[in-house]
Order: sequence, then C-alpha cells, then structure tokens
Amino acid sequence: MPDKYTIGVDFGTESGRTVLVRVADGEIVASHVHPYADGVIDERLPGSGRRLDPDWALQNPADYLAVLRQGIPAVLSEAGVAPADVIGLGIDFTACTMLPIDSAGTPLCLLDEFRAEPHAWVKLWKHHAAQPEADRVNRVAAERGEAFLRRYGGKISSEWFIPKALQILDEAPAIYAAADRFIEAADWVILWLTGQERRNSCTAGYKAMWSKRDGYPSPDYFAALDPRFRDVVRDKMSRDIYPLGARAGGLTDDAARQTGLLPATAVAVANVDAHVSVPACTVVETSRMVMIMGTSTCHMVCDTEMREVEGMCGVVEDGILPGLFGYEAGQSCVGDHFAWFVENCVPEAYAVAARERNQSVHQYLEAKAAALRPGESGLLALDWWNGNRSVLVDADLTGLLLGATLATKPEDIYRALIEATAYGTRVIIEAFEGSGVRVHDIVACGGLPNRNHLLMQIYADVCGREFKVAASDQAGALGAAMHGAVAAGKAAGGYDTIQEAAAQMAYLSDVAYRPDPRSQAVYDRLFQEYVRLHDYFGRGDNDVMKRLKALRSQVLSGAV
Amino acid sequence: MPDKYTIGVDFGTESGRTVLVRVADGEIVASHVHPYADGVIDERLPGSGRRLDPDWALQNPADYLAVLRQGIPAVLSEAGVAPADVIGLGIDFTACTMLPIDSAGTPLCLLDEFRAEPHAWVKLWKHHAAQPEADRVNRVAAERGEAFLRRYGGKISSEWFIPKALQILDEAPAIYAAADRFIEAADWVILWLTGQERRNSCTAGYKAMWSKRDGYPSPDYFAALDPRFRDVVRDKMSRDIYPLGARAGGLTDDAARQTGLLPATAVAVANVDAHVSVPACTVVETSRMVMIMGTSTCHMVCDTEMREVEGMCGVVEDGILPGLFGYEAGQSCVGDHFAWFVENCVPEAYAVAARERNQSVHQYLEAKAAALRPGESGLLALDWWNGNRSVLVDADLTGLLLGATLATKPEDIYRALIEATAYGTRVIIEAFEGSGVRVHDIVACGGLPNRNHLLMQIYADVCGREFKVAASDQAGALGAAMHGAVAAGKAAGGYDTIQEAAAQMAYLSDVAYRPDPRSQAVYDRLFQEYVRLHDYFGRGDNDVMKRLKALRSQVLSGAV
Repeated sequence: MPDKYTIGVDFGTESGRTVLVRVADGEIVASHVHPYADGVIDERLPGSGRRLDPDWALQNPADYLAVLRQGIPAVLSEAGVAPADVIGLGIDFTACTMLPIDSAGTPLCLLDEFRAEPHAWVKLWKHHAAQPEADRVNRVAAERGEAFLRRYGGKISSEWFIPKALQILDEAPAIYAAADRFIEAADWVILWLTGQERRNSCTAGYKAMWSKRDGYPSPDYFAALDPRFRDVVRDKMSRDIYPLGARAGGLTDDAARQTGLLPATAVAVANVDAHVSVPACTVVETSRMVMIMGTSTCHMVCDTEMREVEGMCGVVEDGILPGLFGYEAGQSCVGDHFAWFVENCVPEAYAVAARERNQSVHQYLEAKAAALRPGESGLLALDWWNGNRSVLVDADLTGLLLGATLATKPEDIYRALIEATAYGTRVIIEAFEGSGVRVHDIVACGGLPNRNHLLMQIYADVCGREFKVAASDQAGALGAAMHGAVAAGKAAGGYDTIQEAAAQMAYLSDVAYRPDPRSQAVYDRLFQEYVRLHDYFGRGDNDVMKRLKALRSQVLSGAV
Repeated sequence: MPDKYTIGVDFGTESGRTVLVRVADGEIVASHVHPYADGVIDERLPGSGRRLDPDWALQNPADYLAVLRQGIPAVLSEAGVAPADVIGLGIDFTACTMLPIDSAGTPLCLLDEFRAEPHAWVKLWKHHAAQPEADRVNRVAAERGEAFLRRYGGKISSEWFIPKALQILDEAPAIYAAADRFIEAADWVILWLTGQERRNSCTAGYKAMWSKRDGYPSPDYFAALDPRFRDVVRDKMSRDIYPLGARAGGLTDDAARQTGLLPATAVAVANVDAHVSVPACTVVETSRMVMIMGTSTCHMVCDTEMREVEGMCGVVEDGILPGLFGYEAGQSCVGDHFAWFVENCVPEAYAVAARERNQSVHQYLEAKAAALRPGESGLLALDWWNGNRSVLVDADLTGLLLGATLATKPEDIYRALIEATAYGTRVIIEAFEGSGVRVHDIVACGGLPNRNHLLMQIYADVCGREFKVAASDQAGALGAAMHGAVAAGKAAGGYDTIQEAAAQMAYLSDVAYRPDPRSQAVYDRLFQEYVRLHDYFGRGDNDVMKRLKALRSQVLSGAV
C-alpha cells in the first residue's frame, strides 16, 4: 500500500507556503512558496489606486486562493504523489486577519461595486488604524467591569476582530450594512474549500473575545460601544465555533478541481500560525512552553485550569490543544530588533569586514558578540523598541539602552539587545509560574532558533532552563498538515487525536541549549537590574516614554 | 616704529602650537604646529620598550622643548619678524601634567638611570592609573572633614597632582626619593625658559589643592595618607605661587639661543589651556561664562565672591583673572561623544551617501539632524558616556538613551546626543546661578563652535540664552600670547593688565546663536525629563550604572 500524505498550507504575511507531509513520520516531502501578488497593501488600493492612511494594512483574498491553486498542484507534482494518497488538508493563518463577505461567501472587495472602498478589503493582522476603536473597546469594558477583559491581560489590541469590525461601522457604515458577515480569513478559506462555515475556536477565542463557557460579550456591551453595534454577533458573525483538529468538511468538487485534490478530501478547521506550531514542536500537554521566535515572539503554554496571568495576550479553552486552557503571551520586537540594529547602527567597517569574510552582518556581529562574557559589555537594555506586549501590554513604551561608554562597541550593543529580549522572556515565564501555570520545558521554533546559536544560549543562561529546538523550521505548515491528518481520522490512514499525530509526526532537533551555571549567576544579577528598570519605566513610576511619544506626536502634528 | 609682537605656545595632548601675534590688534600673523615625537605614551616606554598598564598615559618632556626649538623660529621666519620686535612669550598647557625633576631641574626620565622607570616620566593629564590614590585622598579628606574639599565639588580627581604624586610614592618609592621636586610640566617649561621656578596659581589652585588664603592641605592631612607623605609640599613642591599674567622672568641666554629670540625677552607665568582662553574670548569680568568646547567642555566664569557651587571642578582666587574668584565646571564627553557615535553607530549607507556628497559623516548627519524639530526624535539621552564631571562629579556614571523605536534613525540619535550635552550645560548654568554666581552671557570657543552650527543653535535653544562665539579658533594660544604681552608691560610696548590686552587683542565672531522661542518651549519640557532621569540615575535612587560597571570589572578580572 502506498504511503499516505497530508497537506498543510501556512498563510503568512507576504506569501503562502504549501507542504506535502508523509503521515507516517512527518517527513516534509515537498514544499512550495507562493508570494501574494498584492502582498501587503499599505499605500494604494489595487485597481482604484486609492491612497490609504498610515497604519492601514490590507490584503487581497484572491491571493489566498492563488496559493491553493498554485501550491497544492506544485507539491503533488514535485513529489509524484497521487491525489488519492492525500488524506487530509489543514491550514494556518495570520490572525486577526478578517474581511467582510456577502451571503454567498464572496469577499466584498471582489465585487465591482465595493472594489474602491478600503473597508471592503481584508484587514491584515498588522492593520493598526483601529486604535481609536480599540481604545473605546477597552474604556467601555473597563467602565462596565466586563469580566472578559481579564482573559486578555486587561487589554484588547487594535489588531483584533472587534476593533476592526467597529472601525468599519465607524468609517464605512455602508460597507458594514452591505456585509452579510465578518469572518477571519482563515475561516473564509475553509468556507471556500468545503462550502462550510466552520469558525475555529482559536481565532474566536484569542482575537474575538469569545470563550467556550461565556460565549461573546453581551449585546449590551456592544451597544455601549455603538447602538448600531448591539447585534454584531447575531447579525454579522456566528456563534458556531469548532475546536481545533475537528473536520470542517470535505473538499467541494469545485475546490477539488482547482487544487488537483480529490473531492471530499478531509479538511481541518483552520488554525492560527503560532498556535498550530505547538503540536509540531512535539508539545501536546501542559507545562511545556513553545516559543515561536521570529520578528516577534509568541509564547504558548497549556494548563488544566483557567488562571489569571498578568499581561498575557489571551487564555482560551481548547485554543491550542483540545481539552486544555491555552495561554498566549508575546514580545512584540525580537528579530525586528536585531534587524533594526543591523540596518541603522552598524558601522561601515563592520559591513566591509563581513563581506570580506562572506558573512552576513548578523553573522559577523554574532561572532564578535559571542566572544563577550555575560556582564562584560556593561550594558543593559529594555527591549521595548516596539512597545511591550507581555506582561505590560503597553504599545507606548519605547526602547532604552543604559551603560554605554566611549569604549562601547557595536557588538556590545547587539549582545545587550539579545539579552534584553531574553530578560523579557524570563519576565513572562515568571509571570506564568507566579500565577500557577507551570513552565517545565521550553521548545523554540521559528526563524531565529536555527540561525542564531548565541541568542539561544543567552536565552538558556538568562532563563536558567534548557531550550530545546523543533526539528522543522516550518512548524506552522507542519502543524497544519498534522491537523489535516487528524481531520481525516485513523480510519482513513490518519490519526484520531493531535496527540497521536504529534507522537508520529513531530520531532525535536538534536541541538539543545543548556544553561551554563557561571553565566546564569551573572545573568541573575543583571535580570534583577532589568526588572527594576522594567518596573520603574513600565509601571508608572516615570512615564517619560509616554510623554516623549506624546510630545513627538504633538510636534509632528504642529500642535507645539 | 615696527609693530611689536608676542608669542603664545599652546602645549596640547598630541602637539604644540606656536603663534606669533601682533600686540596692537591681536592678529595672528604666523602659526606652527609641531607634533610630539613620542605623542601620548600609553603602551610602551620609549627606549626600554617597557610595557605600561592600562590607564597609564605619559609624555616625554623633550617633546616640549622640541616645540619651542621648532615652533618659535618657524613663526618668526614665516612672518619675517625680527626677534627684537618680540616683546613677550606666554605658554599654556594641559593640566595636571606633572613630572619629577632633579635639583638641577632635569626631568628624571631624561637621566639614563631612570629612563626605564615609568614613574620617572611625565604623567599626562589623562593618566588615570592613580585612581586608588584619588580614592584615598577623598576618603581621608572626608573622614577628616577637610575644608578644601568644598572648593572642588567634594571630590579630587585621579587626574590631579596629589594623587599622581602619591602614586609615585606608592609604586616607586625610589623615584619618589630621587625626585628633588614634582612640578607641573607648564611650570617646568617656564623654568627651562627663564631659569626661574615660578609656579602658577592656576594649576596650583585647580589641580594641587592650593588656595591663596589657606595654602596647601596640612602636613597632618598628608601624613594621614601616608606617613612618608607628610612633608610632600615642603620637600617636593613649593609654596611660592605666582599669579597669572605676572612676569616669570626673562629668557636665559641658552633658551634665547635655542629659540631664536633675544635674551631677557619677557616670559609670563604659565597657564592652563582652558583658563587662558577666557581673556582671549574677550571675557575679563564677572558673570560672563566662557565654554571651551572640544572633545570635552570646560565652563569658566568669575565672581567677586567665594561661593559653594555643586559639582564644580574648582574655585580658585586669581585662578582665571587676577582679583576674581575663577570657577571651573566641566563636561567630560562632548566632541568625544559625537566621534564615538560616528565611529561606532553610523551605517554604511550613510558613509556612502556622505562620500557621494563630498561631506564628512559629521556634516551629513548634521544636515539630516538639522531637519528634525525639537521633540521629533522622541529620544532623550544622558550624556554620561565618559562619566559626569559637573555637577555630579562621578566618573562611574554611564550613558543612557531612551525612547528608541523601530523607526528611530541615526540622525535621531545623533541629535539626541547633542541635545543631551546641551541639557548637561544647562544643569551646570543653573547650578551656578542657584549658588549666586551669575551667568549673564556666554562665549564659546574651541573646535566645535565653528564646525557645528546645529549644535550651537541647540545649545542656545536648550539654555534659553544667546551663545556668542570667539573670533579666534586658537583661543588658548592667543591667550598665552596675550599673557606674554602683559608680562612685557606697557613700557615695553605691551599692556599692564590682561583687561587692557583683551580690549585690544580679543574679538568675538560676527556669528551668534539666539534661542528660538518655539524650540525653547519644547526644550524646556524635555529638560525637565532630563533632570528627572539625571537625578534618578545620578543621585543614588538607582545606582544601576555603578553596579553594571563594577560587574564588568569583576567579569574582566575573572572574579565572577
């Protein structure tokens, strides 16, 4: 009997990646990346050329379908696998990435009458123009003492579903009225594949303030935001939410024809890129944290109880793994931090020296920084170049570098920035543990762990814990494929649970990073200093960062 | 009758500059720079090749004589001026730059038997290896409640005379014993020129804890440092101190022969580079501050009273101008700051762009930074990359940059560093004014004011005062020449007082910088933030900078 396969499609910010994975052992036998034709739309609308305001970030849903139409045939062809041997399909997506659709499920932006209207398009996760709405969402929730706030570290982000929907109502009531529903792009792709609307519990829980026990916030709350918004859930969303790993349905004939798969192939309920990585990192139980480390870092850990943890992004029952409460925390600036430094702060002599060695500037800096001992730079940084997501949940905090002298070199600063992100992670781990959510074990995945060994060693030394690394650097796509195998079920050659799938399909790398006791002792001292500065600048003792940001806005707007 | 001339020789850190100046109008008619053959000796002793410890910085006194032998004939020849028309000679020097000599006035390091002994050489101002001795000097003075401490902002620097002499006793008692005297290099050059030991009140007062009213600290104090040190003043120094502008003597026949001047030409008592610049900036009265702005900045202002001002470097009667109390404050890192930034933190793209425009990186950055409005960068820095001299007198403080985001550009940081040094100056001005020392007027001189217009405008905006600029960018050498004219006296074609000399020989530039009210209003807000951080990190609320520095030392020494 030939091997069985499952397909995972990872919808990222700039492109979609399709992988074909052997069900028996998780081997990725083919992979294909399709860049979105319209990419991130943040200057002008395609077609009309209409100019967008700053902070806008849109996408074209047609690009998602192109990924399916290109990627799936490509991986089948590359591996020479027959469609009959593909038992399942899963997807993961950025979130909250949402759009308005009509009653037939067609995105409004694909209809000629709405094409020139920005609010008809997909609002990408990093669309930040709904900040006034997020402020209102938070203020009204706080005034009313809404309990749901506690599940989100006390603050709803402008990136999330309700602020984005409310922005449409505020700024484009005609689009709001025309929209039959607002839907996560992830769920819309599943609708297109299966003809079934099967909204996933992960985005509903983490991004749309839904919980399995309490549902959505009440109509009274929504009405307090805007009377026209009272019935947004009933009229524009859905209360049917499906757990991860469930079967959303089978491929429609049309979708089968367009993707080259067989009709009725099992399709899993959609997932979020970070969350789906967890089982792909071998983690299917409590007390094991997964860190997805790239431009930013997500921290995921599960527990059997619902607990309040300061500054997490959210806690959702069944949100990461069925049967467990899934906790998410985050650092908003990690790889971005080092990229900013390399672009803006590394002198010509280093760029030249790196070229002479055929190294990237990152590699050259890493080698120089690795020669330093902990504490040797004399520097300490607060890793807030892009605000602080967890545990302070404050986008208005900014970066700090302390301890510079005339002898400070670029590699000193580079290392201090890495260390700062590691201290930030330790603060998050300690917040979890302090609230009773145990973190026994840490597995890292994403772009950074396999590229930057110094960084991983510093994380181990700072956190005083071993850092394991996922074997696959495509944890998102692999996790999606694993969900596809679970949607197919054991009878069809897949698995009945994500635990079973993980046991066969997910691996750790041989590389692990163990804390060096001597480095750890120095970092314990430095971490105390970090925490003191963190609390001084982050908890209101001195709000100078916010005042400087406010002054900057006043200067730029001509108010002063 | 031919014009009369006076010569000024400015002994710097790397070279000596000789200027020939017309007495009638201060015109510099010829100038010559002679680099020291041995430069700053900080790695190996010339001759023996003996390796020096870090923090050491020595010079070769033969280099000073070479400046006189080369520079004076060169300017006479260049201008075609006859020796008979040179009525006077003055010098200024870095300080405290001191050396041991024998009873004939010969530096010990020029004697074969002592040549391989580091302590026999000139200790340059920036020799920092006497820090343990400085700590002892301060601790013992504080324990004994020595009143002299108050004249020096509560702290004696490791750069000064007594710590340096004490280091010789500690580490090389044979050299201490062999030394007939310890003497400032400035006074030693005067001794060589005139055969007269005429120690100047400026270095004695600012660098050797002497005051006109109280003399030196007591033998009991010195004995408390080390019993062998009890009679250091009586045995190794001199109590004869001469005011600035006084005639030290006439050129000896030998010195005349070696310099090409006439024997008996009037020679002024030596001076310190910064202090001698004051009359060269037209300032000969109270309430007008002179700022000498280069790698670091000195702030000089005179008052009729002796007052206690926090954190000044010293107050000396007759120390700057005869008849007045001269106050000195300082910022230890100004031009050095910008040089550090350009060397370590400016990306290749900027270096390339500057070259394409035939600009220096400084010029390119200045143009970009000048396009920013106050407050626009969102950044705030503490200008402590080289510690804080005034008003905190704390070498263990380090730099801080706050407010960075992923949008921060190099020119934002560059401007923030300039602004930080301006805030530092404002703190000093406010300390003076708060203690009753008025600062009506500010004149800037040195290398920076004529090179960096943005910097001067920021200083004016931050301090809310007009900044005038000296016409000459060789204020030190000009001031030395003016003292030469005063040493000659009116009867010989010179002047009887430095006030008369300044009235004829010193000028301001036509360029002045006036505060812009709108910028000033923004900077007033930013200055309040600066002061709050300054006090938090500088006055003991959070000594994190000191702890990081101490940890760094422990790491480097292998202690942790």
